[in-house]
Amino acid sequence: MSSLLVHNVGELVTNAPGASDGGPLGVRRDAALLVEDGQVAWVGPARDTPAADRRIDAEGAAVLPGFVDSHAHLVFAGDRAAEFAARMAGEPYTGGGIRTTVGATRAAVDAELRSTVRRLRDEALRQGTTTIEVKSGYGLTVADEARSLRIAAEVSEETTFLGAHVVPAEYADRPDDYVGLVCGPMLAAAAPYARWIDVFCERGAFDADHARAVLTCGQAAGLGMRLHANQLGPGPGVRLGVELGAASVDHCTHLVDADVDALAASSGATVATLLPGAEFSTRSPYPDARRLLDAGVTVALATDCNPGSSYTSSMPFCIALAVREMRMTPAEAVWAATAGGAAALRRTDVGRLAPGARADLMILDAPSYLHLAYRPGVPLIRQVLHNGVLQ
Amino acid sequence: MSSLLVHNVGELVTNAPGASDGGPLGVRRDAALLVEDGQVAWVGPARDTPAADRRIDAEGAAVLPGFVDSHAHLVFAGDRAAEFAARMAGEPYTGGGIRTTVGATRAAVDAELRSTVRRLRDEALRQGTTTIEVKSGYGLTVADEARSLRIAAEVSEETTFLGAHVVPAEYADRPDDYVGLVCGPMLAAAAPYARWIDVFCERGAFDADHARAVLTCGQAAGLGMRLHANQLGPGPGVRLGVELGAASVDHCTHLVDADVDALAASSGATVATLLPGAEFSTRSPYPDARRLLDAGVTVALATDCNPGSSYTSSMPFCIALAVREMRMTPAEAVWAATAGGAAALRRTDVGRLAPGARADLMILDAPSYLHLAYRPGVPLIRQVLHNGVLQ
Repeated sequence: MSSLLVHNVGELVTNAPGASDGGPLGVRRDAALLVEDGQVAWVGPARDTPAADRRIDAEGAAVLPGFVDSHAHLVFAGDRAAEFAARMAGEPYTGGGIRTTVGATRAAVDAELRSTVRRLRDEALRQGTTTIEVKSGYGLTVADEARSLRIAAEVSEETTFLGAHVVPAEYADRPDDYVGLVCGPMLAAAAPYARWIDVFCERGAFDADHARAVLTCGQAAGLGMRLHANQLGPGPGVRLGVELGAASVDHCTHLVDADVDALAASSGATVATLLPGAEFSTRSPYPDARRLLDAGVTVALATDCNPGSSYTSSMPFCIALAVREMRMTPAEAVWAATAGGAAALRRTDVGRLAPGARADLMILDAPSYLHLAYRPGVPLIRQVLHNGVLQ
Repeated sequence: MSSLLVHNVGELVTNAPGASDGGPLGVRRDAALLVEDGQVAWVGPARDTPAADRRIDAEGAAVLPGFVDSHAHLVFAGDRAAEFAARMAGEPYTGGGIRTTVGATRAAVDAELRSTVRRLRDEALRQGTTTIEVKSGYGLTVADEARSLRIAAEVSEETTFLGAHVVPAEYADRPDDYVGLVCGPMLAAAAPYARWIDVFCERGAFDADHARAVLTCGQAAGLGMRLHANQLGPGPGVRLGVELGAASVDHCTHLVDADVDALAASSGATVATLLPGAEFSTRSPYPDARRLLDAGVTVALATDCNPGSSYTSSMPFCIALAVREMRMTPAEAVWAATAGGAAALRRTDVGRLAPGARADLMILDAPSYLHLAYRPGVPLIRQVLHNGVLQ
């Protein structure tokens, strides 16, 4: 068994308790980290460094757990750059463009979808994302949802069946029938490749009754639950998610007190996942992260990477937005992008650097995690280890 | 003489008139570009491709002129990440932190300053910036300003003497004496290494009389004029710059009608350089780019890269902000970041891709320049040519 030592770490973010700074990031100064068999085997002060077969010198830089991007839509074809430009010139975002991507995705051959998924996964990995959730949702037929998830499962263990993304045009007058399809043959075909089920609970997509039906049928098939909720306006999604015990409610842009209270009362069982890239790219008001954090809600940050409303794969960009626009502290934002994402996926093996965790980490071109917000837009990820392997 | 052909270019942004789209970007589809002796020798349709010694296949991607970042402060020591975090937690930005960097810069040895300048220049180059202006302004003694510019001149021909950045602490009660020093021995020591003179004309820095004195003495020494104006509040800087014939007035965050009228009346002789990274990182309102563009003012975008108010070297990030926050179209923003920056530096050999221009260009990991705004935060610069040499 080969061992690898990452040494000369100026600042090690562990997200584990017991570190000297006492904060949620569990920051250690002048530290080292030993990797064995793809896992973190030891974390400690530089002076106690154990022997190892190989060494990586971090040259005094900051080392962080790999980002956990818990919300991404990577299986699609085409792009919507022209729609983006029109929106920036004043057209409102309604979510209607999803159907454009559905048409392109259905028309694409497998190789094209596979190429896009891999390109975006690789792009995210270069930017420090070592765990990425991948949703279906641009197929919306039994065959296209199943192949979307089959392709997603080639690159990620965090696959999400989002047959209930929008009601496709051919079911426009029959949403009940479409929900029946999603919960019947589509779920049966998708479930072998999926860990999660998701639904877009929003005016213009699926109402609370439909969302409840979708989530509970997914749960009955052994899938975990998560949902898109309260993005474009207030609605029942967040409370429904908490009631059903969903792992995460995503967007949370328009919340009332009862939503925040419900999330807080879940004691972290349901995470509020904020996706500021979507507000950036649709020129919409940002979620009120402070209200959630101050109420004790567990908050995650994710990219929402998709060709319509947020075509970024950059977790550092989302951190910079979270600090600038949502008044999260840099520490809160980094925690949300690592440990928060892990909580949203109910994972304990990623999002932290402690013995037993997966050896997923990044070495920054910077002395501190603060630089991820302090140096917006700058590619600061020098090296990435995924499962202990240098990428 | 070796020749290099960049072929299979899906979208070529030339910033030159006569292209098929008729817009300011001079976009050509399915194009190729020939480089000889570090210059663009030919631009044309793919079907007419000439012979060449070497070829680079752009694989259908977009090719743009290298970015021209006309405002950057790269010669300094230390960082101010803690000040940034405090500001994000609510402390206002006053510019007072400049003195922190002055102390660190004076204490640094040459090798440390040189290392920082080169690291940031290289970082910018990887992000597509092939021309970068570099200011002094953290030395504020005769010796420290001269060495700052000597080091700056090692990496850029666009060097700017900014002895009048702030009044240093030791001259706090004697600003007239400090201006005398700037215009006397400091200018004499700095001028051999500088192309430009600059002054921070702002409440708390230099008033209009001082700014006029600094700019005119620089001009008498053969330097071109540019200034920091109207960043933190309204003031006389913009009109002073136009009156004196400065190449650029930078920031332009707080303008009155007379400022906009003066800039428009200059017919492009004085460029308005907008620095949205500064507003992002100080959580300030953005300049009104539309008002300037709609009045016919020539607008440039630049990073303002500095350790206090805008520690980004990313022109793509500034383009994304310009589109999202200042309602520039993606085409206006890309023009401002290339041809606009060249205008702000009064250069005709950069910021465009036409025969005779310097062969400074980037190949994107994207089919269109639109993606620079559509995909915020994502490193999209695949390859960079600088003076015809692949970086």
